[in-house]
Amino acid sequence: MKNKIVRPFFWYNSSLYIIDQIKLPYRKVYIKCRSYKDVYESIKKMIVRGAPVIGLVGGYGILLAIKEAKCKNLKNFIVKAAKKIISARPTAYNLYYVVNRMKEFVLKNSFLSKNELFKIAVKEMNSIQEENYNSMLKIVKNGVSLFKKNSIVLTHCNTGILACGDIGTALGIIIEGYKKKKVKYVYVDETRPYLQGARLTMFELISAGVPCCLVTDNMAAYVIKEKKVDYVIVGADRIARNGDTANKIGTYNLAILAKYHNIPFYVAAPSSTIDVNISSGREIVVEYRSEKEVKYVNDKLITLKNAEVLHPAFDITPAELITAIITEKGIFNFPYDFRY
Amino acid sequence: MKNKIVRPFFWYNSSLYIIDQIKLPYRKVYIKCRSYKDVYESIKKMIVRGAPVIGLVGGYGILLAIKEAKCKNLKNFIVKAAKKIISARPTAYNLYYVVNRMKEFVLKNSFLSKNELFKIAVKEMNSIQEENYNSMLKIVKNGVSLFKKNSIVLTHCNTGILACGDIGTALGIIIEGYKKKKVKYVYVDETRPYLQGARLTMFELISAGVPCCLVTDNMAAYVIKEKKVDYVIVGADRIARNGDTANKIGTYNLAILAKYHNIPFYVAAPSSTIDVNISSGREIVVEYRSEKEVKYVNDKLITLKNAEVLHPAFDITPAELITAIITEKGIFNFPYDFRY
Repeated sequence: MKNKIVRPFFWYNSSLYIIDQIKLPYRKVYIKCRSYKDVYESIKKMIVRGAPVIGLVGGYGILLAIKEAKCKNLKNFIVKAAKKIISARPTAYNLYYVVNRMKEFVLKNSFLSKNELFKIAVKEMNSIQEENYNSMLKIVKNGVSLFKKNSIVLTHCNTGILACGDIGTALGIIIEGYKKKKVKYVYVDETRPYLQGARLTMFELISAGVPCCLVTDNMAAYVIKEKKVDYVIVGADRIARNGDTANKIGTYNLAILAKYHNIPFYVAAPSSTIDVNISSGREIVVEYRSEKEVKYVNDKLITLKNAEVLHPAFDITPAELITAIITEKGIFNFPYDFRY
Repeated sequence: MKNKIVRPFFWYNSSLYIIDQIKLPYRKVYIKCRSYKDVYESIKKMIVRGAPVIGLVGGYGILLAIKEAKCKNLKNFIVKAAKKIISARPTAYNLYYVVNRMKEFVLKNSFLSKNELFKIAVKEMNSIQEENYNSMLKIVKNGVSLFKKNSIVLTHCNTGILACGDIGTALGIIIEGYKKKKVKYVYVDETRPYLQGARLTMFELISAGVPCCLVTDNMAAYVIKEKKVDYVIVGADRIARNGDTANKIGTYNLAILAKYHNIPFYVAAPSSTIDVNISSGREIVVEYRSEKEVKYVNDKLITLKNAEVLHPAFDITPAELITAIITEKGIFNFPYDFRY
């Protein structure tokens, strides 16, 4: 199932190495994170992005924090580190989920020596990664089962191995779907402003040998209609109990376009994306990012210097526009009521 | 009514000078067109763009062709020149309309000496420009009448003086609407791939002192919902008899989003945009442009070199999604039946 793609991060010799996704696909540069603050910065600056993978990387940040901590105030240090890491991206729930789980694990085992604690925490992170891998496998299996033969699919942003650490959610389904002859052709939104579609999804699809075509985000309706797209499928950053879904800005647009053209709109995500504490999308905090990320492409200004700019990094798609939410636990349909 | 904006072209000393809109707003460089082929190239390369203004510039191309023509085969030369100029952009109808009108004018008066013919053809172009100006005035008056006080408006691409030669259509309405306190705030789609919104519309709005904010195209649904947009208003490149409208790629997306959010979607254009010879949008030829225009931003690659790319320059918005079509002749509503 694993393709030839570069890994978004790896843990080696008690250090975390993260590939700089801003430089992909032009250059493959790994950055070494020596501290939890390095991890925080990598997530904040989008050197690493993608809801599931920032969860994993955040968890490894807790391992680094254990190394950094003084024995006598380890618990406080870990609580502070967890809070800081989680603050890097407020919208994605997986980050909170994994970091909080690792924090609780450390607190529960803080009676151990630092060395012993570190060892079992590494094991815990290994099993979280294993769970992540197994989740992805099941998500892909569930997702592929929804597709008819030789489908034409449209996707947004990047939801492959680079976003998920392993296999991928929506993009994992697409790639496996291609192998199973369920997917024939993929249209990829470039996904402004960060161009994750143009840079990362095209890279993963081409690496996997899947026939694909890049379009600007505003071509979506044209493509759905004229190229007879069968499905739109995307990932998720946070899913409320009622199914309202925060995902990369532009997702809400696509859900409306899919509805208008009467084609299914699927969301694929591990269940660790579901925030059972919130009843609807109204409670999801949408992160606003820097104007510069819109105003500059490859360090060159694309508008007037004094132009005002809006940069919400996510939007919320109301549950009623989502045909199905695909997790490792199954395929769910509207009306959603997630309570586990 | 005329704002401080630079003019998209001027005719001086029997030559045509066109501002290079690709370099705007960073640099203001006028290119001198000495022949109708220069005009063809300027339109083809999008040095000048915007349906009404390429009509005017195309018309001046016929004046240049008269200068170039040998007396004895002037008629054939003009027919050839007209065909070539019109071929530069197949979708916009105004180009066909003005160039064809000038061609017919020349053929009708070809019994005159070349000098005399040139003189009256210049006069004819002057009156076409005057008509264009007066059309824009009326379009703006009609459009502004549709807006309630202090509206929030979303627009796409560029439909101001740079696109129209004078005043503008959708953007003319917005700017005049601001002066009349009908418009409070404007959201501008950046309009990939050519970024006419980011470069040209933001430039015109800031020059005119209108409060405005740039967004990426995929933020439209978010902005309509969260920022409570009252109207979406755009221009047009060709309108079929039934009201189906070809306009810059991304327009069809917006029309669907406006429908979903239950807000009006307006199209503003001179009646010379209406092609009464075609019954519906199915007959409109959508121009496909070079992949490079999507793959490179400011000469820098934004995806993989070998990525496949689709680049339709326009899309067709079905008439039933258009709340009103605003021309100098009035405000029209669905179902449309243009027969003049």
